[in-house]
Amino acid sequence: MGIKTFDDYLNRLKKMRRNVYLGGEKVDRTDERLSGQLRIIRETYDRANDPEWRDLCTATSHLTGEKINRYTHIHQSIDDLLRKQLMTRLLSHRTGGCIMRCMGIDAMNALSVVTYEMDQALGTDTNQNFLKYLKYWQDNDITANCAQTDTKGDRLKRPHEQADPDLYLRIVESRPDGIVVRGAKIDNTVAPVGDEIVAVPTRFMSEKDNDYAVAFALPADWEGVKMLVRPAGQHKRKYLSAPIAEIGDAESFTIFDDVFVPRERVFMDGKGDPRQTAYAGFLALLFAHYHRHSYTGCKPAISEVLASAAALVAEYNGIEREAHVRDKISHMIGTAELIFAAGQMSAYRAEKSPSGTYVPDEILTNAGRRLAGEEIYNEYKIVADLAGGLCATLPFEEEFFSEETEKLANKYLKRNPKISSENQHRCFRGIENLIVSEFGSVMQVGGLHGGGSPQMETITMMARYDVESLKSIAKYLFGIEKELPKYERPTVTPRKMLERFRQMYKR
Amino acid sequence: MGIKTFDDYLNRLKKMRRNVYLGGEKVDRTDERLSGQLRIIRETYDRANDPEWRDLCTATSHLTGEKINRYTHIHQSIDDLLRKQLMTRLLSHRTGGCIMRCMGIDAMNALSVVTYEMDQALGTDTNQNFLKYLKYWQDNDITANCAQTDTKGDRLKRPHEQADPDLYLRIVESRPDGIVVRGAKIDNTVAPVGDEIVAVPTRFMSEKDNDYAVAFALPADWEGVKMLVRPAGQHKRKYLSAPIAEIGDAESFTIFDDVFVPRERVFMDGKGDPRQTAYAGFLALLFAHYHRHSYTGCKPAISEVLASAAALVAEYNGIEREAHVRDKISHMIGTAELIFAAGQMSAYRAEKSPSGTYVPDEILTNAGRRLAGEEIYNEYKIVADLAGGLCATLPFEEEFFSEETEKLANKYLKRNPKISSENQHRCFRGIENLIVSEFGSVMQVGGLHGGGSPQMETITMMARYDVESLKSIAKYLFGIEKELPKYERPTVTPRKMLERFRQMYKR
Amino acid sequence: MGIKTFDDYLNRLKKMRRNVYLGGEKVDRTDERLSGQLRIIRETYDRANDPEWRDLCTATSHLTGEKINRYTHIHQSIDDLLRKQLMTRLLSHRTGGCIMRCMGIDAMNALSVVTYEMDQALGTDTNQNFLKYLKYWQDNDITANCAQTDTKGDRLKRPHEQADPDLYLRIVESRPDGIVVRGAKIDNTVAPVGDEIVAVPTRFMSEKDNDYAVAFALPADWEGVKMLVRPAGQHKRKYLSAPIAEIGDAESFTIFDDVFVPRERVFMDGKGDPRQTAYAGFLALLFAHYHRHSYTGCKPAISEVLASAAALVAEYNGIEREAHVRDKISHMIGTAELIFAAGQMSAYRAEKSPSGTYVPDEILTNAGRRLAGEEIYNEYKIVADLAGGLCATLPFEEEFFSEETEKLANKYLKRNPKISSENQHRCFRGIENLIVSEFGSVMQVGGLHGGGSPQMETITMMARYDVESLKSIAKYLFGIEKELPKYERPTVTPRKMLERFRQMYKR
Amino acid sequence: MGIKTFDDYLNRLKKMRRNVYLGGEKVDRTDERLSGQLRIIRETYDRANDPEWRDLCTATSHLTGEKINRYTHIHQSIDDLLRKQLMTRLLSHRTGGCIMRCMGIDAMNALSVVTYEMDQALGTDTNQNFLKYLKYWQDNDITANCAQTDTKGDRLKRPHEQADPDLYLRIVESRPDGIVVRGAKIDNTVAPVGDEIVAVPTRFMSEKDNDYAVAFALPADWEGVKMLVRPAGQHKRKYLSAPIAEIGDAESFTIFDDVFVPRERVFMDGKGDPRQTAYAGFLALLFAHYHRHSYTGCKPAISEVLASAAALVAEYNGIEREAHVRDKISHMIGTAELIFAAGQMSAYRAEKSPSGTYVPDEILTNAGRRLAGEEIYNEYKIVADLAGGLCATLPFEEEFFSEETEKLANKYLKRNPKISSENQHRCFRGIENLIVSEFGSVMQVGGLHGGGSPQMETITMMARYDVESLKSIAKYLFGIEKELPKYERPTVTPRKMLERFRQMYKR
Repeated sequence: MGIKTFDDYLNRLKKMRRNVYLGGEKVDRTDERLSGQLRIIRETYDRANDPEWRDLCTATSHLTGEKINRYTHIHQSIDDLLRKQLMTRLLSHRTGGCIMRCMGIDAMNALSVVTYEMDQALGTDTNQNFLKYLKYWQDNDITANCAQTDTKGDRLKRPHEQADPDLYLRIVESRPDGIVVRGAKIDNTVAPVGDEIVAVPTRFMSEKDNDYAVAFALPADWEGVKMLVRPAGQHKRKYLSAPIAEIGDAESFTIFDDVFVPRERVFMDGKGDPRQTAYAGFLALLFAHYHRHSYTGCKPAISEVLASAAALVAEYNGIEREAHVRDKISHMIGTAELIFAAGQMSAYRAEKSPSGTYVPDEILTNAGRRLAGEEIYNEYKIVADLAGGLCATLPFEEEFFSEETEKLANKYLKRNPKISSENQHRCFRGIENLIVSEFGSVMQVGGLHGGGSPQMETITMMARYDVESLKSIAKYLFGIEKELPKYERPTVTPRKMLERFRQMYKR
Repeated sequence: MGIKTFDDYLNRLKKMRRNVYLGGEKVDRTDERLSGQLRIIRETYDRANDPEWRDLCTATSHLTGEKINRYTHIHQSIDDLLRKQLMTRLLSHRTGGCIMRCMGIDAMNALSVVTYEMDQALGTDTNQNFLKYLKYWQDNDITANCAQTDTKGDRLKRPHEQADPDLYLRIVESRPDGIVVRGAKIDNTVAPVGDEIVAVPTRFMSEKDNDYAVAFALPADWEGVKMLVRPAGQHKRKYLSAPIAEIGDAESFTIFDDVFVPRERVFMDGKGDPRQTAYAGFLALLFAHYHRHSYTGCKPAISEVLASAAALVAEYNGIEREAHVRDKISHMIGTAELIFAAGQMSAYRAEKSPSGTYVPDEILTNAGRRLAGEEIYNEYKIVADLAGGLCATLPFEEEFFSEETEKLANKYLKRNPKISSENQHRCFRGIENLIVSEFGSVMQVGGLHGGGSPQMETITMMARYDVESLKSIAKYLFGIEKELPKYERPTVTPRKMLERFRQMYKR
Repeated sequence: MGIKTFDDYLNRLKKMRRNVYLGGEKVDRTDERLSGQLRIIRETYDRANDPEWRDLCTATSHLTGEKINRYTHIHQSIDDLLRKQLMTRLLSHRTGGCIMRCMGIDAMNALSVVTYEMDQALGTDTNQNFLKYLKYWQDNDITANCAQTDTKGDRLKRPHEQADPDLYLRIVESRPDGIVVRGAKIDNTVAPVGDEIVAVPTRFMSEKDNDYAVAFALPADWEGVKMLVRPAGQHKRKYLSAPIAEIGDAESFTIFDDVFVPRERVFMDGKGDPRQTAYAGFLALLFAHYHRHSYTGCKPAISEVLASAAALVAEYNGIEREAHVRDKISHMIGTAELIFAAGQMSAYRAEKSPSGTYVPDEILTNAGRRLAGEEIYNEYKIVADLAGGLCATLPFEEEFFSEETEKLANKYLKRNPKISSENQHRCFRGIENLIVSEFGSVMQVGGLHGGGSPQMETITMMARYDVESLKSIAKYLFGIEKELPKYERPTVTPRKMLERFRQMYKR
Repeated sequence: MGIKTFDDYLNRLKKMRRNVYLGGEKVDRTDERLSGQLRIIRETYDRANDPEWRDLCTATSHLTGEKINRYTHIHQSIDDLLRKQLMTRLLSHRTGGCIMRCMGIDAMNALSVVTYEMDQALGTDTNQNFLKYLKYWQDNDITANCAQTDTKGDRLKRPHEQADPDLYLRIVESRPDGIVVRGAKIDNTVAPVGDEIVAVPTRFMSEKDNDYAVAFALPADWEGVKMLVRPAGQHKRKYLSAPIAEIGDAESFTIFDDVFVPRERVFMDGKGDPRQTAYAGFLALLFAHYHRHSYTGCKPAISEVLASAAALVAEYNGIEREAHVRDKISHMIGTAELIFAAGQMSAYRAEKSPSGTYVPDEILTNAGRRLAGEEIYNEYKIVADLAGGLCATLPFEEEFFSEETEKLANKYLKRNPKISSENQHRCFRGIENLIVSEFGSVMQVGGLHGGGSPQMETITMMARYDVESLKSIAKYLFGIEKELPKYERPTVTPRKMLERFRQMYKR
């Protein structure tokens, strides 16, 4: 059956080849510095095995009919999209804002659509490879990262124009049994503790970029794969344990040093079959699309985590009735609600693609994700504002527990007399972890860039929105056109988006 | 049958008693200065009679089973709420942003819930009065305003504390056959051309404010009702007719100069039955709630009308490919989408009240309406920014058509060579009407205050949101509480809202 | 002597040829619809003749040593710049935000620098023409507009590339006794009631744009000059007179229909002498620079006028102690102070150009002006927010004075019991004039675009700021460069700006 | 003579008693974890001894006529204020945004005014104590922190109302030879490496709060003083040294455990002489005022440091010509210029207090400081935006220098081909230090709260601004008052501020 336990997963990690480089040496996946990420991923296994959560966190495989972890599921309905989004929000409450496992399944959903479209159009069999690989995923409750972002070199040049041709991941050899790839992918969250790597293109590829139109999956410890890993965590707690202090991030700068990928794990090969190149952009965008939709789940949770901390410290500081405090908290709540609503309505407006996979609405998903990116720094500001400077100047934990200073330190920490010194301490320590820490600052950047920065969402929206149809409103009102056609929301529905891509690739 | 034509309605207006005061004299409802508002309301009749729109703009009465104008319908389902919102958005595209007729039916929906609740609790029969009155509405396709905002006097004092007891509308006498009311209601859009006035309270009322707990309906030309009317329109076009120049607003400062209301048109009478006073706040809030939900329909349309003008003038100015232009238009589009999504999801989360009427989600409706209010001035700024100063300095229409200046004026107006001088002229003239005019500035204020300013939505949100439940997230993450309870969105669902009100009034 | 009275000026206007087109006919400069602008300009004459203000509003001519109106003065010192800015701020308090006469003298200051530079470099004698013309100005206390903005046609094309070569004002003939010009200038505030028109280029001109490098001055009623005028004022008050209701704007779309300019009034002639073309951009920028510096005087006044109205209505509404109210008013005050400080420091950092004229700092002037443009719509929003909807729905004045409604209207207007109904009325009527009127909406657009929109200031700032020098900070901190050179503010001082232009034009 | 070297200072630190608690033990002032702060303070000694900087970084003592470090100088002129501000800006460029030594001298300037005022009014001799102490400061080039912020307990209660009377620092005993104080001060930057602590009150004190009206100075290692220290630095660099990686912060939670202060070091003693209590608020505000003025020096530097990093990484990423990039950098530059101009104009508007010390303008200082606080999080956002996600995901330094990964890591880091891999590395590593680190997040909070959050500046501005005088503008324009009095900037000048305080304390 397709639901594994955290221990099953951990045992797999323990068996993996050492290819994680950290601080100048190769380390195990169970290295202490990666424990924060494991703590987060643990939630995705534990909750799927928790009777109270099972309903939300599992699904029925459309391949096998078996119960599987929802993080390995291909969305078969609007309800699936709604549940994925809600699961992401609720689990993120438990992990301080990020559940990490979304990116792998977002890549899989995108592949399910694009490989199907490609096979239909070109007579290829990448979808077969994909479905076989998906079964392996679902059976083993696989955790994977999606390796999308290339290092990109000179950003004004296309992949094939770069001084060094390897600055985008490329196929150096395509042969019947597989492909050999060279290059690097960066910003790879989850990768250091993933079973697998799912690689997809980062952008549209032109006809001269065939070598760069590549998608595949590999075990994370595969020969030739090297992960340079950057962890970010918290000062370890000695006395006051708390979930916020246990979580952490780790990002991989993953190098593919002439790596062989067996054919059955290849989902796009523009070098071997240049017709496939046209689908690189489609896949890049569709992964981004699913991933931004996931962000409409986690970003409301981030706003809520921050609003929650803001509300708590406002209470502890005794200022929660102040007008400006209520105004600020209400602003964060409103942001969370609007982003989540954007994602929900994207799901309600989703349409079934020919592959059977549901595709959410693009304009609204991007509008929601963008609002999140625009607001994230402001939300940190609000928490800092309501907490006061102490969140950045709180002495270390030890000072509150060493004989010489313990009593004095706790005495002077008291604020609201109803709140114990320990809880005051926990509150400020928690806020320190949340917003005044290496991890907190990584989360800020992630809140801005993860899934694409506001700049990228604007570009996507304007690429897809039917501005000419929008103009017809003004043309009617200003008397330039006699009538205003009815009913059309001037945006591209998922179905139209697919049709448009399909047209683009018929050449 | 319940769908009337614009002419039917106009004929009713023509027969009405003169009680509209405008510029120092009493005028007919067909006075030229009120024509802009009639032009807008006309859409609600014409579209209901238009085969292409009928589906959206009509509904089936739950009272009679007959087809009625949707603007006289009590929402019987989620679908009804979604359709009302969509109709409001689409018709507002045709009228430059406001459809005006929403407020009447929003008041009726609120009354349908509150009179039912009151009767159930108190054994009164106000719901019977209401249903009878509703039938009259539906049969005659009635246009009405909602008279809510009192003049309020000293805002730090409650109604009964005011120096002049009439500064909130009050019942001066309650007798078996009806009540006599005195006071004034302001900001009454539609009133100058409405068949009827539906009056509801503006706020919660305490036990000392019994006289002020009053709701009723009256014909707009009823004895003792005096409307001081403030119209706002456009310079009349002589040469280039256009819908934008034909629309207008008119607001009434409505005085009730000791007016008798027959009992069958009384829906709340706190003087006659002090138990009813408790329901004043419920009715005030519920009307605001329905009206804010209507704003999630029209406000996206306003953003779209403005974005449409911005996109058109950017094209005509030849700057539509500039990065900052696309950024600004995309921002407006995103705002429209988010507000509309907020309203749609409020509908999806709606719950059926005991009266049978559906009540949308409150937090999300308010979050959406607030975003609209926060953005409105910025949206005007963007249109002005992309149009350039000419929208404020364009010579009058005559200069473009008088012999001596016509050729020169048109010659120098040319910008994009593909666009005729006339269309250039129409575009800038249209934008002048939209954002550089008395009407435009009234719409700005309306965009901020209509349905309640952002300040009011913040207050509503914080009154209803379960902040304690929100704090549990931080308490869990910071180790203050061991577990995080599952699944609860920390907000009040419509059902809980009703229950809370019900509790409040059981005393 | 060089200080005239308003009557002197008015008598000049009365004698002028009719070339103002308004509503399809030619009208006098004393037409009622232009009276609002006269009311504003009157302040500049009255105050210069007012003993209490004379000190600030007059200066000593550097040409003649005589006392002159400061609005005809060329800045000879830092103190002159400071006084011009302060005068502009204080007079704008009296006129609701705009004093109008700044643009003429801003053009004259720019001409004083550029004609001098040009003569020094090229051996021309435009500065002599200019100085002679300046004497005429100072002796007669001339009011003029600056005609800068061309209609520009297709904005992606340079002047000589336009389909119609006349879409930028151009010299069609250059002969010894003068030039003949054809084209139009738009957004010309003051022009309908100015004695004179001072025309300057709108942009840099390339070598192919010689015909468009043109600057000159003409009497406003000169043969061939046609002004299509767009006035914007207020509903006339019948009962409650107030300065706010008396002021107004009028903009001219000025057409030069093959107009002959005598040589002594020509200050730049790129057709006759193509070497002068290089100076077109310098003049365009320098006028904009002086004008933006003027805006650091009037824009704080606009913020203060709006903040003043906001504070007053907050008092009348009884909400002035609310936290959000104080926050909003404080924000407006802060904006005013920051913009004014930017202009003052620009003056303190000013440097004397070789012509003797002082040139303020460019980066800071632009930063100040831009902040003003960014904030203007928000400031209107705040006033509307604190006033409430009534500012947009107040019945006409007559309703408060006609027998039938007077008592009722005034009764229900009462708010703060200490404030008379009349003052309540005056306050809301004033706010209506300020923010809910055709004039108010023109002022909004003017607040955004006047002197150049925020977009233009950003472009100017980035063109002039030494970004490479800025980068040296990061290079030092990041260890890329060993040392950080001392002391240099990475911006271009006025002197460096002049040198840079001078280099540019040595070719 | 009064200018010491860094070594002089360091030798003093080495001799100090161990009373710094860090991580559960007592440590020396030279502990590695405090080295980042020493690195910053070093600049203040080195530059004063650097011939190129001496002019700016030294001053002439008004006590002795000797050359002293400007960080020990009492401002005797407008020029002194301007130089202090400029020095702060320029040195902060060299330290990444904070120079730390301002707070001590800000407290000394405030004391110079308030002790003088107090002596004049009350006949006390605190100013004599102060001047004697000042001479010691200047002779020894003392580094000190200002201990202002009390822990405050329940924020809705006054000091004497707290459950525990020690939650504000208080005098437990006042005797002829001195006072004994008990309590704690928090957010004490510099304290861990300061020679001295200068303590001042945190707020106004009422007559019941006499015990809390206390100001004094003590050696930082004085008997009974206990510092619980919270350092924040960077990952130590092994290969690529850079100033940004060497700097750091350390904050002290300083406990006064029944500490005796000799009388000659007491500057305010409300317990011994209750008349002095009235001056507590004056001193609290005046320190905040000088400190906010210092922020108008360092905050522009912070904006410039961030803008500098943004511009550099935009170049390295090859996007510096993009419109949105230029827009964002220009916004940061503009912010820096406006804040600095606010501080400069505050200096130009400064007035000499009776003590001889110059006091800058309060409204403008607060407006400038507030803008800085409002913008700080947005500025971090811009840097993250332009840098891209890599600044948060860059592998550790070792991976770029270990044999196995060095070549690959550097190969894939290449972007702009003109920039070496090392400089690319340095740039992203520097940005990581700046915005994705514990130190960076402390600086964010400091940028918001240091010197008082925007909330505090709003309160100060509204307390001091003459809103009634502001209203007179609207009253004039709206016809409520006949005339508008001339010339008055509706704010309180420094002189008026002092007078107002003086009035307040005459009772």
